Amino acid sequence: MAEKFEIVVVDDYQSDVQLVLRMFKRNRIANKIHVVHDGVEALDFVFCRGAYSNRSLINPPGVILLDIRLPKLDGWETLRQIKSDPRTRNIPVLMISGLSSADEQEKARQMGALGCIEKPIRFEQLREALVASGFVWSIVVHPES
Amino acid sequence: MAEKFEIVVVDDYQSDVQLVLRMFKRNRIANKIHVVHDGVEALDFVFCRGAYSNRSLINPPGVILLDIRLPKLDGWETLRQIKSDPRTRNIPVLMISGLSSADEQEKARQMGALGCIEKPIRFEQLREALVASGFVWSIVVHPES
Repeated sequence: MAEKFEIVVVDDYQSDVQLVLRMFKRNRIANKIHVVHDGVEALDFVFCRGAYSNRSLINPPGVILLDIRLPKLDGWETLRQIKSDPRTRNIPVLMISGLSSADEQEKARQMGALGCIEKPIRFEQLREALVASGFVWSIVVHPES
Repeated sequence: MAEKFEIVVVDDYQSDVQLVLRMFKRNRIANKIHVVHDGVEALDFVFCRGAYSNRSLINPPGVILLDIRLPKLDGWETLRQIKSDPRTRNIPVLMISGLSSADEQEKARQMGALGCIEKPIRFEQLREALVASGFVWSIVVHPES
């Protein structure tokens, strides 16, 4: 189940991406993580277009961590397009902000995202945002141990 | 995978058991939880004896949360018996203490447990103890959402 539940990270800053990947690794998250770097690539991934035409809309990502400030297409417009298509509307999206304000929280929720959390993403903060949205965690033994 | 990875809670205080169950529920842990109330019952469960003779040693619990102060057989003796049988030695056990001391931590590790954490068990504390021992988490969408 964890293998099929893919987490998509949308961020253009390589150092921030590394922080997120390290955070997942340190907390031994079993899910597959896929990184894309701008809003256009995020939409290509979600809608299975361009470089991602081999993907299928039948297997949507389990959750998208979507940075607000992105090249080409910003996080808000990317979110709007995901939420305005019935095929992708139900994909859970969590907005990521350099400095999250109450306004951004409110805007994120109104636009259909789960919420908005600040960089650098702490595991506990991510977990709380997801648990509040109805996500379930499971504890599994690492195959190597 | 989460369904097969059973968590066993060994505690005789009903209010403490309720706290643990609520903690798991609040954090939306997907694993099956099994509660037993004393050291003898814990060993019956682990060794598939008595009331648990329908269980099989082929399906050991994924992790045991073992209270130190227990009726009939205390946590230390229960741990010793689990760790001295090659069939059950590899089951991860985390000791639970009313007031954990450095001595108990040390004793727990020397006897083959993952460590010792204090009551009331906080999710974050449990997660850290398990992650440090090589456990992996996965995020899954609740079937109802």
